[in-house]
Amino acid sequence: MAKFMDVHDGFFDVTAEQLNAEHDADLKIEGEEGVHFERAWLAPEAGKVFCLSTGPSKEAVMRVHERAGHPASQVFELTAEV
Amino acid sequence: MAKFMDVHDGFFDVTAEQLNAEHDADLKIEGEEGVHFERAWLAPEAGKVFCLSTGPSKEAVMRVHERAGHPASQVFELTAEV
Repeated sequence: MAKFMDVHDGFFDVTAEQLNAEHDADLKIEGEEGVHFERAWLAPEAGKVFCLSTGPSKEAVMRVHERAGHPASQVFELTAEV
Repeated sequence: MAKFMDVHDGFFDVTAEQLNAEHDADLKIEGEEGVHFERAWLAPEAGKVFCLSTGPSKEAVMRVHERAGHPASQVFELTAEV
């Protein structure tokens, strides 16, 4: 199991409620890909969302977001954290 | 007090020990700017570090990183999290 940070673009003027709804859409299907989205942070001025997850691969993380209707722009494997 | 995610570039092939050392350099001086760095994640294949912080402004966050010797490329104010 690895850890990932992915980044979404184009989330301008999104509200906390919308972020929750999008996150819930991920949570509903993530188990089918062996992924878990732990946290998500919204930066609506820049249109960005950052998601922290664990899963088997970058591809699995991206598949969950795609299937939930909000594909990510980038995903990075994390090797350390403090 | 607001919350921020900042992103560093160019951290290729950095180790967990080096990430810890850089983070400690932030922690030593962050109080002078009213900032606190809560977490940092390393993605050395892409040369990226993501830092989650609280503080009074983007400028204060950036000043701590600059003074610690590792300026960030981007900083985003976060308005919501899940």
